[in-house]
Amino acid sequence: MAQQTYTVTGMTCEHCVRSVTEEVGALSGVTDVAVDLPTGEVTVTSDQELGVDDVRAAVEEAGYKLTA
Amino acid sequence: MAQQTYTVTGMTCEHCVRSVTEEVGALSGVTDVAVDLPTGEVTVTSDQELGVDDVRAAVEEAGYKLTA
Repeated sequence: MAQQTYTVTGMTCEHCVRSVTEEVGALSGVTDVAVDLPTGEVTVTSDQELGVDDVRAAVEEAGYKLTA
Repeated sequence: MAQQTYTVTGMTCEHCVRSVTEEVGALSGVTDVAVDLPTGEVTVTSDQELGVDDVRAAVEEAGYKLTA
């Protein structure tokens, strides 16, 4: 199991949190996504380590930006 | 035809705009809802004048507050 925390900018409300959770959660192998709205921290748990480009693409698909 | 502008607080993104538009748009007689996100102004067009309590209830159902 792998767990990685990213920082996402642009989320302003619970709808934004839901969008990011859904897109990142749809990545292959992801078992949990936890978003902290005030900080923008997105913690992703997955069966194996994810490629940051895949995570970035999912975040951008939701309409937000991955910064770290 | 009636048109009335209200001010709604708490909307922070386009998802919020969509939620308010959907809830207010579902009120009987409403034919158009236009939301300006930066100002929170919601302009509602309807067949007949709406009761402010009905509009307030729809806005609160969406998760926001009607202030004026």
